Amino acid sequence: MYSLNFGSLTIEQFLAEYWQQKPLLIKGGFANFQDPISADELAGLALDEQVDGRLIQKDGGNWQLDEGPFDSFDKYGDQNWTLLVQAVDYWQPDAARLLEPFRFIPNWRIDDLMVSFSAPGGGVGPHLDQYDVFIIQGMGKRRWRVGMPDASLEQFCPHPRLLQVSDFNACIDDVMEPGDILYIPPGCPHDGISLEPSLNYSVGFRAPAQKDLIGGLADYLLDFQIEGERFNDPGRLRSLSPGEINSRDLGQVRQLMQQLLADDDLLSHWFGSYISQAKRELDLQEPEPHYQAEEIAEYLDEGSVLGRLGGLRCCYQQAKAEGDVQLFINGDRFPLPANEIDSARLLTDRSQLTEAECRHFVQTPERLAFITQLINQGYWYFVE
Amino acid sequence: MYSLNFGSLTIEQFLAEYWQQKPLLIKGGFANFQDPISADELAGLALDEQVDGRLIQKDGGNWQLDEGPFDSFDKYGDQNWTLLVQAVDYWQPDAARLLEPFRFIPNWRIDDLMVSFSAPGGGVGPHLDQYDVFIIQGMGKRRWRVGMPDASLEQFCPHPRLLQVSDFNACIDDVMEPGDILYIPPGCPHDGISLEPSLNYSVGFRAPAQKDLIGGLADYLLDFQIEGERFNDPGRLRSLSPGEINSRDLGQVRQLMQQLLADDDLLSHWFGSYISQAKRELDLQEPEPHYQAEEIAEYLDEGSVLGRLGGLRCCYQQAKAEGDVQLFINGDRFPLPANEIDSARLLTDRSQLTEAECRHFVQTPERLAFITQLINQGYWYFVE
Ligand SMILES: O=C(O)CCC(=O)C(=O)O
Ligand SMILES: O=C(O)CCC(=O)C(=O)O
Ligand SMILES: [Co+2]
Ligand SMILES: [Co+2]
Repeated sequence: MYSLNFGSLTIEQFLAEYWQQKPLLIKGGFANFQDPISADELAGLALDEQVDGRLIQKDGGNWQLDEGPFDSFDKYGDQNWTLLVQAVDYWQPDAARLLEPFRFIPNWRIDDLMVSFSAPGGGVGPHLDQYDVFIIQGMGKRRWRVGMPDASLEQFCPHPRLLQVSDFNACIDDVMEPGDILYIPPGCPHDGISLEPSLNYSVGFRAPAQKDLIGGLADYLLDFQIEGERFNDPGRLRSLSPGEINSRDLGQVRQLMQQLLADDDLLSHWFGSYISQAKRELDLQEPEPHYQAEEIAEYLDEGSVLGRLGGLRCCYQQAKAEGDVQLFINGDRFPLPANEIDSARLLTDRSQLTEAECRHFVQTPERLAFITQLINQGYWYFVE
Repeated sequence: MYSLNFGSLTIEQFLAEYWQQKPLLIKGGFANFQDPISADELAGLALDEQVDGRLIQKDGGNWQLDEGPFDSFDKYGDQNWTLLVQAVDYWQPDAARLLEPFRFIPNWRIDDLMVSFSAPGGGVGPHLDQYDVFIIQGMGKRRWRVGMPDASLEQFCPHPRLLQVSDFNACIDDVMEPGDILYIPPGCPHDGISLEPSLNYSVGFRAPAQKDLIGGLADYLLDFQIEGERFNDPGRLRSLSPGEINSRDLGQVRQLMQQLLADDDLLSHWFGSYISQAKRELDLQEPEPHYQAEEIAEYLDEGSVLGRLGGLRCCYQQAKAEGDVQLFINGDRFPLPANEIDSARLLTDRSQLTEAECRHFVQTPERLAFITQLINQGYWYFVE
């Protein structure tokens, strides 16, 4: 288990003073840090067609970007390049464990683990992101500079697929060593350049914008064929100017839309479903043949433990204390009675279940049927 | 010009007591009614590939539906069938004039003109619609029955593409003759069966549902790349159950979405654009070659008159008295200063401009440039 040490700060203080506000370098955030993946293993992942990798190289003033999958890395030499692999937690359970210490932030805000290997001099250039990130230094040494948000900074593309930022004043300028953690809020320019071959682990977050939310809701209404209420205007006044969209009509259009958002059930059902949807392909491996419930009960009674598929998005919502619990797994919604909230918590809070926690799911036929279904979908699996 | 006569009712009374509430048969609504189109002309339209026509036939207990375009109508015999052609106002300016008397309802609520020809015994069967309609009897005689909305009515498909309703109690049961008008609010079951070969003109309306509005807004934000504000949570409390979507976060998601709707400019710009989008292809005929502004000025000074393309959706919105006017034509928005409101009204209120009204557009270079652009797009054209 990775044990995160904020130094003199408590998690509460970090959230109050830094989270979404200021960058922070946490020296020795992970004591005696051991890389969960090697550079070779990362390179191996990047050969796979299903894996999203990119290699960024700086050659004097020129930037080059190659998309994966890759055949080999020989041509890149031994300096000035970085291999970045997205969503390594989807493919590598050991690496996925790096996310766990950050779950003082809810699941729905956490995105995925991006891992980079950079040769000396390697980096993606100064840039800023829309999302929070914790960058963990693994093997090697890397100089990281971070600045505060600055509206005067210009963004430009030194390469069609690279968006970088002009020179910025750094409020953090340090060499990161294994186990150091760098927290960067959205909008803070940052630039990492390796001094030694380095592995960096980016625990990335997500935060929907208004456009994403409206779009997600529109899709949901379409998918579930929810028409909703229709505009109606009994007793409307005669139009003297038929071309006009009058304020009263426009106000009613607005009101209609706001009423939809005011529907508690709809909002909750939609948002959990939306925010738990997979945004990229999971490494789903359905057991062949499917298990029967009795087999699952046997294994769990014997002490088998279950792990959750890396990248699977799970969350739950309980609108009212003692009310129904909506459980969301990979975009699907499972309504549960209030007394099943522990089932929801076990499945969503924990990426791996202990023996005792697993046995919770043998205690009733409903839980057994449910866990069997989840295992047969490849969402949970027996850990060796 | 068709002059609509509500009998003993004023338009104000019709709106207060019937519109969106109760059906109404207006005997002699159009005195001395002359069909703007003949049955043969309608049939001719239905041969055209671009025109949306359907032929519905009842054969004993069986319903048949054929999609246009049609080669001939001989095979249908001389009874028990109806040819329906959508959006005839897009193709036939004389027929389009039938919409004008109904513009005591704003443009944005008006959809299009559907025309049917039915042989004796012909009809589409008892059904209900989501939208208001005025059905005008042209040549012939047709028995129309209309009932009040009734939740106990069942809908079923006697043919995969026909949605009909079970037997209903009629509150209107009459034989319509040329010039009679039948107003039917949404949800009222209705059934028309011809006694003689009949032409019926349906002035159809539209009213968006919540799903349409959210979907339309989502498309707009996408098309114009309007991200909006992003979810942010500085100072959030530590999650004890990371799987949970807590009420505070969900509340903020809702609030973010509602704030977008509360943006007056966004709402107005989006809605006008959305509600003026063409939902089917227009009969656009761009002049070849394009006119120069000077030519247009000459023609209009000489007394040429302009007609607006049938089906072109136009409307305007003025958020504040004395404020900017947003003019919307075919999904595009044209911001105008307040002192140009007459230009907006002329283009949206009137489907044809008189000589004097046309000369309004020669009075300034901006207006002239604008009307030239609209003519060159095929939106307005010189009326012979
Ligand atoms: O690992 C790198 O080189 C880039 C990391 C980064 O910029 C990020 O995670 O936001
Ligand atoms: O003309 C017809 O046969 C059908 C008219 C109708 O049902 C309508 O316009 O809603
Ligand atoms: Co970054
Ligand atoms: Co109808």
